[in-house]
Amino acid sequence: MQIQDWGEEGFIQYLKENFSTKGSIYNIGDDAAVIPDKNGVACLVTTDALVEGVHFIKEEIPSEDLGYKTVAVNVSDIVAMGGEPKYAFLSMALPKTTHCEWLRNVMQGIKRACEKWGILLLGGDTVGSKRDLFLSLTLIGSAPLTRVKYRHLAEEGDILCVTGNLGDSGGGLKVLQEGLIGFEPLTQAHFRPEVSVEQGVWIASQRGVHAMMDLSDGLDCDLRRLLASSKKGAVVEVSKIPLSDALFRASLENQWDPLMLALSGGEDYRLLVTVAKEDFENLQATFQRRFGAVLSDIGSVTNEAGRLIYQKEGETIDLNPVCYDHFSEGEHGD
Amino acid sequence: MQIQDWGEEGFIQYLKENFSTKGSIYNIGDDAAVIPDKNGVACLVTTDALVEGVHFIKEEIPSEDLGYKTVAVNVSDIVAMGGEPKYAFLSMALPKTTHCEWLRNVMQGIKRACEKWGILLLGGDTVGSKRDLFLSLTLIGSAPLTRVKYRHLAEEGDILCVTGNLGDSGGGLKVLQEGLIGFEPLTQAHFRPEVSVEQGVWIASQRGVHAMMDLSDGLDCDLRRLLASSKKGAVVEVSKIPLSDALFRASLENQWDPLMLALSGGEDYRLLVTVAKEDFENLQATFQRRFGAVLSDIGSVTNEAGRLIYQKEGETIDLNPVCYDHFSEGEHGD
Repeated sequence: MQIQDWGEEGFIQYLKENFSTKGSIYNIGDDAAVIPDKNGVACLVTTDALVEGVHFIKEEIPSEDLGYKTVAVNVSDIVAMGGEPKYAFLSMALPKTTHCEWLRNVMQGIKRACEKWGILLLGGDTVGSKRDLFLSLTLIGSAPLTRVKYRHLAEEGDILCVTGNLGDSGGGLKVLQEGLIGFEPLTQAHFRPEVSVEQGVWIASQRGVHAMMDLSDGLDCDLRRLLASSKKGAVVEVSKIPLSDALFRASLENQWDPLMLALSGGEDYRLLVTVAKEDFENLQATFQRRFGAVLSDIGSVTNEAGRLIYQKEGETIDLNPVCYDHFSEGEHGD
Repeated sequence: MQIQDWGEEGFIQYLKENFSTKGSIYNIGDDAAVIPDKNGVACLVTTDALVEGVHFIKEEIPSEDLGYKTVAVNVSDIVAMGGEPKYAFLSMALPKTTHCEWLRNVMQGIKRACEKWGILLLGGDTVGSKRDLFLSLTLIGSAPLTRVKYRHLAEEGDILCVTGNLGDSGGGLKVLQEGLIGFEPLTQAHFRPEVSVEQGVWIASQRGVHAMMDLSDGLDCDLRRLLASSKKGAVVEVSKIPLSDALFRASLENQWDPLMLALSGGEDYRLLVTVAKEDFENLQATFQRRFGAVLSDIGSVTNEAGRLIYQKEGETIDLNPVCYDHFSEGEHGD
């Protein structure tokens, strides 16, 4: 059997079964591992890898953006746990024909991102590669242990909300795949995802916030993970999913389905949060005042474990977004 | 310009110049980054990557040994700083045709190594790869801050010593490259390097120990790094470099130069230590009693910055071991 048959979930299941015993925990359930210290501070650790030809096409992504994105996707994981990023370690495998200019630009992107988020790049490993280019960043962050947020604590009746528009990055990817010109807000969202440490830290500190994660693989896929982890279900009102004007316009022009891009486009790096119903209104209003941004209510958590229902203006609708599996031949239904 | 022209040192120089400013330190000088906490404990972090076709040939290394080695080379970095390994994070990029059985064996090797050294595997990222297979492990360890050992503190007159035989791993690689049968102690040293946390922690705690690092790229290359970092020189008496009987026998049979394998074979993962002359004799004797192993005196540190002199029975000899550059076409002189 090859891992394309096993699938990502199959492998993760194997890891859980083999590394959860004897005190060893494969902390696969959350965006980052949590290591508490004696002073009530949690050290948060995450690793994300980007592979040429899988996560990026070298000729398509501006080299500086590639560096920036390598940091941003990891920052998003730390933020999703309610933490602040601190220290980064970069592991790279580079074919010897890699151009120095290109590599310098990647490193400049990493440097800009580190400066933006106050991260110190403290080390790493740079090795040769036969053909493909790999970038892997390990990011260490921290948060007061009592404020760390997880995926498994969603409660029945919680409001499901997201911190910004969804689908722009997926739209940007379509722009690239279809060789279109323009649509810069979308390609920009794809190349340089916005991640707000302040929003994450603030949300994590608020009353009634139960579960949190970042949206990296599309709302559908990620929400199913949160629900599985919390042993809950959800109803999502698709008309409430926030979509940008740029995505609407591009979708109209190119016959895309913007809702599908929001559900399965991936790489939005927004936060998905569940909040106690009685606390949501106040949280939303304060968030708006504080950040000038909308915390969008898109549905609610139910007690029907694993059941995700999509509704459109209150009527249940049938949707089959595709969830990406890294090891499979192509994309496949969830 | 391509990075094969730039070279590993050129890139490291670029990183130092660009990431040492504004409070950001690219901690390239040591085996692991050191992050002190408020309680006088240092968090040590290291990352080592292994790439198919560069660091290993999938058909040659037993899959379980590959997993074991991925952990061992990182443990060696933590030990070289005087620390104990604690938490691991594994990043893997796998072609979708990778066999599940092979991957399970790699993971079993990782598990055995984690159990052996008391490490918890807490997370990571597993992604697809187009062609090459890539493994990168980030290992977090800890040590009392006052006991952390660095490369830059060697002093004039220090005794240079190593914690075990050199060249066995390089011999093992030659066995594989030349398609020989047998010589198991050598291939074993290459596939499953021995790393002793106890020896490293103990040495780091002893009086007179000034500088320490692990031998990953061959004594010649690594000693030059330690000397450059300490702005010192050294005299090495080659007849004192400890070599195993297995390496002597294999060298005789196959016309290898065992000294060259010790100087440039790499992947020995022994400790290179500099010790104040007056403390060495006692340290060596106690080490022998405690671990039943020899701490071999191989030379001494001089004040001639950057000058490494090889002697044979007191006479200066001319040696030109090759130092491996990950980005170059082939191996080249140092």
